[in-house]
Amino acid sequence: MPGDPRPIGVFDSGMGGLTVLKALAARLPHERFVYLGDTARLPYGTKSAETVQAYALQATRLLLDQGVKMLVIACNTASAVSLDLLQEAWTPIPVIGVIEPGARAGVAATRNRRIAVIATEGTVRGGAYARAIRRLMSEASVVQQPCQVFVALAEEGWTDSPATRAAAAHYLEALFSGPSAPDTLVLGCTHFPVLTEAIRAVIGGGVALVDSAETTAGAVAEALLGAGLESETGASEAGTVRFFATDSPERFARVGTIFLGRPIEPASVELVDLRVL
Amino acid sequence: MPGDPRPIGVFDSGMGGLTVLKALAARLPHERFVYLGDTARLPYGTKSAETVQAYALQATRLLLDQGVKMLVIACNTASAVSLDLLQEAWTPIPVIGVIEPGARAGVAATRNRRIAVIATEGTVRGGAYARAIRRLMSEASVVQQPCQVFVALAEEGWTDSPATRAAAAHYLEALFSGPSAPDTLVLGCTHFPVLTEAIRAVIGGGVALVDSAETTAGAVAEALLGAGLESETGASEAGTVRFFATDSPERFARVGTIFLGRPIEPASVELVDLRVL
Repeated sequence: MPGDPRPIGVFDSGMGGLTVLKALAARLPHERFVYLGDTARLPYGTKSAETVQAYALQATRLLLDQGVKMLVIACNTASAVSLDLLQEAWTPIPVIGVIEPGARAGVAATRNRRIAVIATEGTVRGGAYARAIRRLMSEASVVQQPCQVFVALAEEGWTDSPATRAAAAHYLEALFSGPSAPDTLVLGCTHFPVLTEAIRAVIGGGVALVDSAETTAGAVAEALLGAGLESETGASEAGTVRFFATDSPERFARVGTIFLGRPIEPASVELVDLRVL
Repeated sequence: MPGDPRPIGVFDSGMGGLTVLKALAARLPHERFVYLGDTARLPYGTKSAETVQAYALQATRLLLDQGVKMLVIACNTASAVSLDLLQEAWTPIPVIGVIEPGARAGVAATRNRRIAVIATEGTVRGGAYARAIRRLMSEASVVQQPCQVFVALAEEGWTDSPATRAAAAHYLEALFSGPSAPDTLVLGCTHFPVLTEAIRAVIGGGVALVDSAETTAGAVAEALLGAGLESETGASEAGTVRFFATDSPERFARVGTIFLGRPIEPASVELVDLRVL
């Protein structure tokens, strides 16, 4: 079997989705990737469903033009509001979001059936995590907490600063106090994994932390295998990433380095205008 | 003299410019206003000059269609990169930004000729405040500090939370220590006036705080008078505001209330798509 050499497309509103790309690259070392960050219009988390859907369709068009074999919506907000639409509109390739894998991992982790989800305003408003969790575990008690300031803190690189700990305490302290506290916290925004230390300091060691980047990488690996779309072992360009951004390659590279966990060269990021596609 | 009954147009990337609108309405009680927040594409502070210029031109077109007699760019980032362009492209009406008035007030306030400017990444990168201040006071020492996290904190309504104080300490403590500390701080982003208390707690009482909302209102009043464009006393609809937003009137109303300092009804905010104008 020769394998399918086409790249996997990864789409995010900006740089947060690089935490998903990082997990994908670690899990699937023979694949190559095309990553698109819609940095001209980030953040999606405060925008309406209709607007985010329109942006997601434009992004999908670019990635299809790049010949991708699978599309990963590495943005919780976009997954929450546009996954069904994209799956219907672009059936030629499989489309995978981050909500379902995160919900599945949360359900697998909980013992007391109380699950907290932290996310952007848009993801919480849409309620997609709560629905996905209850579909899998109808008796689950789900608390959703928007943590909009976490996005800015992560982008600033303040992964464990006093301000980050204070914000974590503000959002999470009361939620994780008392006998009916959740035993599981789903990080429902791709920005949040880099804040794990500050979050952990507030919620304590006994709470299971579910990082949807890791769980999404698992779901993508499964889907590739199931559809027979894997690259062959030792494929040429294995592990390479082509980066596209809709604004400021310099900022994409600088902030993206925080999320990807390795340096990105500004010159390697291609500027693209989604509106003219 | 009958006065000019046309409204004044105020444009911002989102809701922060409502601090400028608030100052304008207080200063010019006989005027009426049209306010446009480009909430579908905020924030501008992390985007490139070219992108912000394109957005500012689209916004200007909408406000001209509303028959405004003067245009106020109530966004520091947009003022910094697009004021010259707008003044050239749309000469029919006067265009006023927030940078020049803020720089002027900073120069008037300083005694030791050391001025600090806090702003978004985009405003700092462009260096417009530093240039404007040095034009007025060539020997001034200007320190620019990007405070990107302040934007999210202000939008969350954490005007004086522990997280806000921690962020203020992170950004400002070292800058305002020692014998060569600035004696003047220009709030070079319209989001920042609501954080005054937390900022003051870090920099101390001896530093002059310059709020460009107030100073811009003064510049607009002067320009109206100079061009003979004032409304007559007791004009009909005096003090009214027509709100436009490019996304989510609900969020505009909720977050905007923080900056305007009085409630905004979601139903009073008209949704508009600048891309199709």
